[in-house]
Amino acid sequence: MGDAAYAKETRNTVRRHRERGIYDYATVHSIVNQTSILHVSFLPTDPSDDPFPTILPMIGTMGLFTQPDNDPGAQPLDLYIHGHSASRLMRLPTAQGLEQIPVCVAATLIDGIKLALTPFNHSCNYRSVVIHGYASIVTDEAEKNWALALITDGLVPNRWDNSRVPPTKAEMTSTTVLKVSVVSASAKVSTGEPGNDRKDLKDESVTSSVWTGVLPVYETIGAPLPSSTNKVAKVPQYLDQWWQSENKKRETYAHGASQPK
Amino acid sequence: MGDAAYAKETRNTVRRHRERGIYDYATVHSIVNQTSILHVSFLPTDPSDDPFPTILPMIGTMGLFTQPDNDPGAQPLDLYIHGHSASRLMRLPTAQGLEQIPVCVAATLIDGIKLALTPFNHSCNYRSVVIHGYASIVTDEAEKNWALALITDGLVPNRWDNSRVPPTKAEMTSTTVLKVSVVSASAKVSTGEPGNDRKDLKDESVTSSVWTGVLPVYETIGAPLPSSTNKVAKVPQYLDQWWQSENKKRETYAHGASQPK
Repeated sequence: MGDAAYAKETRNTVRRHRERGIYDYATVHSIVNQTSILHVSFLPTDPSDDPFPTILPMIGTMGLFTQPDNDPGAQPLDLYIHGHSASRLMRLPTAQGLEQIPVCVAATLIDGIKLALTPFNHSCNYRSVVIHGYASIVTDEAEKNWALALITDGLVPNRWDNSRVPPTKAEMTSTTVLKVSVVSASAKVSTGEPGNDRKDLKDESVTSSVWTGVLPVYETIGAPLPSSTNKVAKVPQYLDQWWQSENKKRETYAHGASQPK
Repeated sequence: MGDAAYAKETRNTVRRHRERGIYDYATVHSIVNQTSILHVSFLPTDPSDDPFPTILPMIGTMGLFTQPDNDPGAQPLDLYIHGHSASRLMRLPTAQGLEQIPVCVAATLIDGIKLALTPFNHSCNYRSVVIHGYASIVTDEAEKNWALALITDGLVPNRWDNSRVPPTKAEMTSTTVLKVSVVSASAKVSTGEPGNDRKDLKDESVTSSVWTGVLPVYETIGAPLPSSTNKVAKVPQYLDQWWQSENKKRETYAHGASQPK
């Protein structure tokens, strides 16, 4: 991957199971964009008053406004998250009187449950990313509009152009977009079958009684259910093709990840 | 639900969509225990040196050591999470020289994607919990052993008794269990079909061209894949019954949550 990767620094270097640490742009960006729900953490406004960080689940996508058709493996990208302008996270930069606030964003996909001979060796297959960066409110109208399309199409591809756009002025005002400029990022990926200790593998009373293997895990999208006010009889092709091909892709990945290396 | 609920305080009161805020013990505990991966956030050791909180994905379960067969709706529970003793989060109380550290834990289940007429009204069905509490290392051997069984059975029911137990001394030393004493907790649940603005619903050019409805979303467990060293020919009944009934339960919930209210 050459230099096409986030720098390894103290903050983002994977220490436990170093071999699972991945820093290249393509892997980091692809995991974030495949994760349905991101978790965003921020610090208390006044740590002397409240000692707890907070996490909120958010929808978001990585992209590059200055180069929308970028190769996601070629350079760092920004992370865009959106929410109602009255929500806590979206009001935070203003509430704290700061141009940008330090946040942490986690994207996690669980791909399997690994059942070993001992509880100690049980674990999961997963793909996870942790990003540290500064979140600021997007004020440029063109960038905000572009980011909202990016996030909507991140939920369901091609949905933006197939819904009522452009947004009204009131809709734009009611929505805030935060851009997270990445300071450090790393991915951690685990695949394969469970590991076992040699001693347990040699103990026939153990191996003859404990089933070991992997339960693949993947998120499934069910068939589209029209809402009570829907007037379009047929599920549009862009939507129908997407959920079916996405399901195949996800199931295939989880099964592949469950195989011995 | 009477008093069987976490107190509503400034920190945990749901402000956006107040009607979605749920505080009763049964709902909070059940969402956490149904979530495969929890996200745990903690503060930087030295905020003047590093301004970022950190999130780590972890496995955990709620329980009450002093009353293992509790009714989970009757009283607050503790949250137990485990990890390798050398991992960052598990070393944190010791590294910070503190008996207990303030953490935030998020549990999020996505149940559907709601496609409205406008991108602005797109949203998700979900069940989410945010907990604030103090994490401390479990030092009592009996509690630690009990918590490890609780966490293992939280991953796959009845797995603890059907694997090689008890753990060896080395396994116990290599594993750390953190107990999070809950200070505040709340759940937020969204179900139903997408909302639309009256103006869009009255605009035939919009309603005739934009499909609206819900894509149910649920995590699926694939058929168990034996590992290369597995010697138990048949998938045991406790495991085979669980993944199949769990899949049915999850799919049924997501479909139910997608219906108009």
